[in-house]
Amino acid sequence: MVSPMYTLYVGTFIQLPRTTSPDEKHELSITRGALWVSTADGKIKGFDWSVATESDLQTLLKRHGWVLAGAGSRSSVRVKLVRAREEENEFFFPGFIDTHIHAPQYPNTGLFGSATLLDWLQTYTFPMEASFASPASLPSLPPPTAYRAYSQVIARTLSHGTTTAAYYATIHVPATNLLASLAHQRGQRALIGRVCMDNRSTCPTTLIDESPEASIRHTEAVIAHIHSLAPATKETLVKPILTPRFAPSCTPASLSGLATLARQHKPPLHIQTHIAENVNEIALVREQFPGCEHYASVYDEAGLLTPRTILAHAVHFSPAERSLVAARGAKVSHCPASNSALGSGICPVRWLRRGGVVVGLGSDVSGGYSVGLLEGVRQACLVSRLVPFLKYPEGEGKGEDGVVSVEEALYLATRGGAAVVDLPDLIGGFELGMAWDAQLIRLGRFKPAGRWGANGAISNVDVFGEESWVEKVHKWVWSGDDRNVRAVWVQGRLVHGSDGGDEGRWSGWKWVWGLVGVGAAWVVVRRVNG
Amino acid sequence: MVSPMYTLYVGTFIQLPRTTSPDEKHELSITRGALWVSTADGKIKGFDWSVATESDLQTLLKRHGWVLAGAGSRSSVRVKLVRAREEENEFFFPGFIDTHIHAPQYPNTGLFGSATLLDWLQTYTFPMEASFASPASLPSLPPPTAYRAYSQVIARTLSHGTTTAAYYATIHVPATNLLASLAHQRGQRALIGRVCMDNRSTCPTTLIDESPEASIRHTEAVIAHIHSLAPATKETLVKPILTPRFAPSCTPASLSGLATLARQHKPPLHIQTHIAENVNEIALVREQFPGCEHYASVYDEAGLLTPRTILAHAVHFSPAERSLVAARGAKVSHCPASNSALGSGICPVRWLRRGGVVVGLGSDVSGGYSVGLLEGVRQACLVSRLVPFLKYPEGEGKGEDGVVSVEEALYLATRGGAAVVDLPDLIGGFELGMAWDAQLIRLGRFKPAGRWGANGAISNVDVFGEESWVEKVHKWVWSGDDRNVRAVWVQGRLVHGSDGGDEGRWSGWKWVWGLVGVGAAWVVVRRVNG
Repeated sequence: MVSPMYTLYVGTFIQLPRTTSPDEKHELSITRGALWVSTADGKIKGFDWSVATESDLQTLLKRHGWVLAGAGSRSSVRVKLVRAREEENEFFFPGFIDTHIHAPQYPNTGLFGSATLLDWLQTYTFPMEASFASPASLPSLPPPTAYRAYSQVIARTLSHGTTTAAYYATIHVPATNLLASLAHQRGQRALIGRVCMDNRSTCPTTLIDESPEASIRHTEAVIAHIHSLAPATKETLVKPILTPRFAPSCTPASLSGLATLARQHKPPLHIQTHIAENVNEIALVREQFPGCEHYASVYDEAGLLTPRTILAHAVHFSPAERSLVAARGAKVSHCPASNSALGSGICPVRWLRRGGVVVGLGSDVSGGYSVGLLEGVRQACLVSRLVPFLKYPEGEGKGEDGVVSVEEALYLATRGGAAVVDLPDLIGGFELGMAWDAQLIRLGRFKPAGRWGANGAISNVDVFGEESWVEKVHKWVWSGDDRNVRAVWVQGRLVHGSDGGDEGRWSGWKWVWGLVGVGAAWVVVRRVNG
Repeated sequence: MVSPMYTLYVGTFIQLPRTTSPDEKHELSITRGALWVSTADGKIKGFDWSVATESDLQTLLKRHGWVLAGAGSRSSVRVKLVRAREEENEFFFPGFIDTHIHAPQYPNTGLFGSATLLDWLQTYTFPMEASFASPASLPSLPPPTAYRAYSQVIARTLSHGTTTAAYYATIHVPATNLLASLAHQRGQRALIGRVCMDNRSTCPTTLIDESPEASIRHTEAVIAHIHSLAPATKETLVKPILTPRFAPSCTPASLSGLATLARQHKPPLHIQTHIAENVNEIALVREQFPGCEHYASVYDEAGLLTPRTILAHAVHFSPAERSLVAARGAKVSHCPASNSALGSGICPVRWLRRGGVVVGLGSDVSGGYSVGLLEGVRQACLVSRLVPFLKYPEGEGKGEDGVVSVEEALYLATRGGAAVVDLPDLIGGFELGMAWDAQLIRLGRFKPAGRWGANGAISNVDVFGEESWVEKVHKWVWSGDDRNVRAVWVQGRLVHGSDGGDEGRWSGWKWVWGLVGVGAAWVVVRRVNG
């Protein structure tokens, strides 16, 4: 039997409209109807917002000459139906875009004690990353710990609704290639960055590139591997991203070498690094690059500030840095969970956006303690509400109009992230021609607590029944977690959970067992009586 | 068959030791062994930390003349065995003590938009609470919405490991009595407060006591109901707590009337109210009570600052307020999730504790967005790491040494809370003679992600296997949720989840069905062949 030509998604679709100005108030777009995605390329081919009832749905099918998969004649166009069930408070939402996450650090999630950035790197991060080296006797084989961590972090991010991730790997080529292969195999859209760090005065001896040239050479090996994953003619989900760890761990030669490498490709390669995360880190950069005006100019002088550059954190930008980054079109990944956890401070997101900087959200695992970007959405809201109490420098305006609404935070996690990874026309929303990168959220129907408490609840969200859709989305944001993610698709492919088929199968088995039991009883009774 | 005389808990027990000074570093106490609890009174009667193996366990049973329930002779003392399974990364931990939660606001969890305290009260809180009034035609019957909300909030707090809660109800006597009855029936340790609010210039007409005398009279009716729940001779889990909402909603007459009522009881009744949460609220209090030196002195002049008083928030205390509250022995409920969500600010917890104020944690649902106190633990850590960036007044020392460690936050959620509700010798830890108010936490064994991601994972925590117990506890704090709460006991009674029996039963059923299937197949084959 041939695959259905389209998957038809029916139910409530919620997304954030694009904005033309950061001063515009973000509001949820809530639509009910049908939307169809091509099986061939995973893109949205059409929608009909007039479909409200079963009879509307039948009319739609008839009008297009579609029959549901498993039914109808051979000559008809088959479609598969996936529903967001209203009675289960389900809705389709764009997949989350995690613009900053360290894949090898996943096993360290939640382990940071009371450390701040620089001691945390030494105590927790560098030893973990060093363990991703291949054994000396098998230099091209990644260690089993790398498979375990990378396999798990992809599965966990997908299960939390992250359809796109900008990953940092480690300096090791075999392990980094493995991360790329796994993302490709599991169908997650990903930017994969081999980390470059070659400064002998700051990098541990167990985790360092031999030279700037080696940094570039190893990076090129990873790029070649990623480009070999899919035929050149096909649109690929996995792309390389150049990843100088951060200014303190790189020499000027490797920084500018990577910038040159980015420019050598058409279109230019993506770039990611860290910036202005922590006050001690900023002091270190000032010491190490005494000729540079500020942190951002270190990267700018190397040629690393491009429209495809993702700068993580930007907690302590000066007005001059904001202007420079906005002028270059480089993007910022806001990682509020990490910034609080490591005591880095609060990034003035609204101030950045007002200054023309494009912002998305990052989990920054394991500086951040959650692989779920919903936690990033919550933290972006929470810390923004503390902005009025911060001692920002006078006259810079960072403390004004600082509150990020739930809607703005969801915008950052979807549309914002899409712009940060330079794919604003492909992902982050449900428009014609965009890829179907989506999550099906199930809040569940109200389930009264029984004698034994909330044991039977499928999730932590209680929808009592009087809530509007806007209120349901707020409840999801504040009480939801991965339990609410029923299914996840990337470019039309189901990559996590169930689109409905599995559930049908399971209840079927229950019936089969029930019938077997009844049959057995009948036979036994006949024998005894006979 | 008679009940077993003891329940014997075997496995790893983790708790926070009591401290003598707030400057002492909090560390986890991690012990492996056996601990037994009397069925008669639910208290810890003994332990043996030398029990490490099955053979040690058998020796322990023999030495005490104990046999496991369901086995042995009639003359033996029967005990029931509950295990924290090492291979599932399970451990016993003291139940959480939520020192501040508004039960009627539970259906509003997650709904606050971008509001701050005073407008949030008007928009979300007061309309919800007003709906708890009894219908005019049935003035002694609570409305069905009250049953639904109260039943659910008790089930949900229990399912998150909250064994004790200091609840605010509403002004309504029938609904408040219902909350007390439900807590009593479900076995949650609770302080139940009928809210008093009688100031005509600030309270909505739909939610106000007719007079200060009515405030007192209605409160007495609730106290009488609570005292009738259990025989006077028996130690009761549910107690009344006097609850003037906060200074702005009360008249001086009701404030001092409630203080008098507290003193009339032996021992004096508990008291709870709000204080110094929000800067606009503080300005309102200053305006309303112009003769008072500061917010705390409003309560002090009324006689409300006692060793059994719980003051929620204390975000903006002056040094004079800290000294006064410490001198009176009144306690503070720190509600970090709420303080961030409503943009109230950051309570300088370490500064309060250094000044001699006893502090516990509160969820403050629905100003706080989570019924789980584990979120309170996380938020207490997170916001404390932002303290260095706050513009506190010079010279007060609030910004110094502000970091709350994971261990200190867990201390606040258990030992701290026990002191706040004035039960430090009964709950919050596992000492001889204390009540068995505990949760069994299951992190689960490592489950590698399969083709379909982390679907099969029982929780959001990944323990890879190399972690120490301290690291496992940190992973629980940062990635855990109610899925990790396998069982909850209050005073020895199982009030949520399963102590092991249920699991045995379910796998048993699977076997029964399997055998029925095989038997049926055999009979069918015989008939066909015969």
